[in-house]
Amino acid sequence: MPSSPIRKLAPLANEAKRQGVKVYHLNIGQPDLPTPQKALDALKAIDRKTLEYSPSEGFLGLREKMVGYYAKFGITDIAPENIIVTAGGSEAILLTFLACMNPGDEMIMVEPGYANYISFAVTAGIVVKTVTSYIEDGFKLPPMEAFEEVITPRTRAILLCNPGNPTGAVYSPEDLRKIRELVLKHDLYLISDEVYREFVYTEEPYVSVMSLGIPDNAILIDSVSKRYSECGIRIGMIVTHNRLVYDTVMKYCQARLSPPLLGQIVAEASIEGTEEYSRESYKEYKSRRDFFIKGLNSIPGVYSPMPHGAFYTVASLPVADAEDFCRWCLTDFRMDGETVMMAPAAGFYRNPDLGRNQVRLAYVLCREDLQRSLMLIRGALKAYNHREV
Amino acid sequence: MPSSPIRKLAPLANEAKRQGVKVYHLNIGQPDLPTPQKALDALKAIDRKTLEYSPSEGFLGLREKMVGYYAKFGITDIAPENIIVTAGGSEAILLTFLACMNPGDEMIMVEPGYANYISFAVTAGIVVKTVTSYIEDGFKLPPMEAFEEVITPRTRAILLCNPGNPTGAVYSPEDLRKIRELVLKHDLYLISDEVYREFVYTEEPYVSVMSLGIPDNAILIDSVSKRYSECGIRIGMIVTHNRLVYDTVMKYCQARLSPPLLGQIVAEASIEGTEEYSRESYKEYKSRRDFFIKGLNSIPGVYSPMPHGAFYTVASLPVADAEDFCRWCLTDFRMDGETVMMAPAAGFYRNPDLGRNQVRLAYVLCREDLQRSLMLIRGALKAYNHREV
Repeated sequence: MPSSPIRKLAPLANEAKRQGVKVYHLNIGQPDLPTPQKALDALKAIDRKTLEYSPSEGFLGLREKMVGYYAKFGITDIAPENIIVTAGGSEAILLTFLACMNPGDEMIMVEPGYANYISFAVTAGIVVKTVTSYIEDGFKLPPMEAFEEVITPRTRAILLCNPGNPTGAVYSPEDLRKIRELVLKHDLYLISDEVYREFVYTEEPYVSVMSLGIPDNAILIDSVSKRYSECGIRIGMIVTHNRLVYDTVMKYCQARLSPPLLGQIVAEASIEGTEEYSRESYKEYKSRRDFFIKGLNSIPGVYSPMPHGAFYTVASLPVADAEDFCRWCLTDFRMDGETVMMAPAAGFYRNPDLGRNQVRLAYVLCREDLQRSLMLIRGALKAYNHREV
Repeated sequence: MPSSPIRKLAPLANEAKRQGVKVYHLNIGQPDLPTPQKALDALKAIDRKTLEYSPSEGFLGLREKMVGYYAKFGITDIAPENIIVTAGGSEAILLTFLACMNPGDEMIMVEPGYANYISFAVTAGIVVKTVTSYIEDGFKLPPMEAFEEVITPRTRAILLCNPGNPTGAVYSPEDLRKIRELVLKHDLYLISDEVYREFVYTEEPYVSVMSLGIPDNAILIDSVSKRYSECGIRIGMIVTHNRLVYDTVMKYCQARLSPPLLGQIVAEASIEGTEEYSRESYKEYKSRRDFFIKGLNSIPGVYSPMPHGAFYTVASLPVADAEDFCRWCLTDFRMDGETVMMAPAAGFYRNPDLGRNQVRLAYVLCREDLQRSLMLIRGALKAYNHREV
């Protein structure tokens, strides 16, 4: 079981804070934007005497709201009976893996990829095969030949994260057409994590796995966490037309009894009537991206491609061992009593030789804090590369 | 992956309700008692602008409150660093299994046992061995010889539920002394699910696994769900002095990011200043138990031992196939537009020959509803055994 590259340095950050150091968190996708007022109002309005279990599949009201949500994105064939509410996207991923694959089965994902996918795959006993995307190509989807090379008789699924965490890559309609052919050819599940769907900064139309016309293969992982800045309520969902997958997921869901009650109430209130909020969030992240990526590339030796979605980027640094650098920033580096926390990118690769000089950065802080973080990275790199060892 | 015996008949119950039938739920431990007002007030008082992630191990404030809670029960050596907050007792069980055992390892539990243990064991790839307790003995702890018989070189853990779900059995200090010797002799983990700790109706002192003086072996599963009637908030915890277990659980916890934020706030407010609430709940359940068990045993052919803890009992019915009877109650039986839902007990046994004529019943309804449920069971048994097939 690997450690989370996003959280494993947390004890060092806590120690720094205990010393009175201010830590800028670029390591984790915890947005600083407020949760929609409508959702906070719904929380205040909860007037239940008993905070009881909810249905294992989640409240019908929330699932109905999600049907309306998908319809706004042109996905009109979803019914509440295709949706299962989970304890965050995290549980959605784990239960999808458990339901779709047996121990020893193989799944293909793109590296660098969301590190916790590997943790959940290990939990489910799944063998992860990776195809590599490269920073110099802007982490674009690897060619289908690369996927074909790692497909074996035990391959059961391809897992995409689109828009991508940690890279911010967004796959084009043409990319998805190719993937569609591949999963049909080899009869694979196509599991698509689309929790960053609303943060796509390209002109090309965004294509969901649910729009590909492969209802038996497609499984959508979703979450309200990022789009409504309510990561803490732990509400995600699995969406599928495949009844066998649905029924198997439900067995796991019944074992864990129910998803969080209070989070469901907040989530349900977040989905409708928050269009203005979503527009503002989008503009804010796009502006932060433009500012932050430009700033990164102005630091000597740093390179970041332009991410087209989500609110992350993977950047290369002028250091041999980015993890050591990230640790050092927390333990040794201080500039006016402040430092910066980054996630070493090596943990997002399966191949231990890749990504050693890269970090994942989340641009979820306000512009002022991003500016300060850029100065800290610049200063830290200079000090680190000139320190006496 | 087995279906939950507690929830698998839910679609039939939903269909009955759609027909306008009132269903009395004896199948699930969803208390009807109100959540403490202090906890509901804390929920109303939440005044955060962003509902953000919490620490993977849970808020320090909640863990500190739990330290005080255990101290009240004479367990004084727990520190916040021994506690990990989870998404309900359910996640605590799954993560404990994943952290303590590898796929193929064996765990021993008593049957009938909480059915979802087996689901989580299947999830973790663990082989479950059972030792049987019997209704005619009041489901008392099987003799140590029965445990010894199923111990193999691959046995890693013994799992107890004390007080027991589904049986209501409470293990005596003498029982726990014997179990302690056994786990030390074979170097096993002793995982003890004590979520019903506060509902013990015997005169004998209640002994927690954390009081046995085996810090490296003991793992406590806990939850605020039942004791504060807040099952929906999904807050449980794992407590252990074993650092390796703690650290391994934390890897899984970091992968799933964090436990529910809102639930933690409610849970933290529930723990102190609710002594009067706890006393009242205790009295209420004890009174319901006395009333309900007496009523059950007055129905011809029904037998229930007297449970000493929790709020469940396993009763035998004068039917060959209790699951068929439970289904029939939902699909066919109506008395003044009402029926009753029970959990077939066979799902709580590993041995498919056992418990076929038994049901698990939760006495979590008010006395009036329990009375009505008893009448429905009586009427349903009569009608079922006289129906034309």
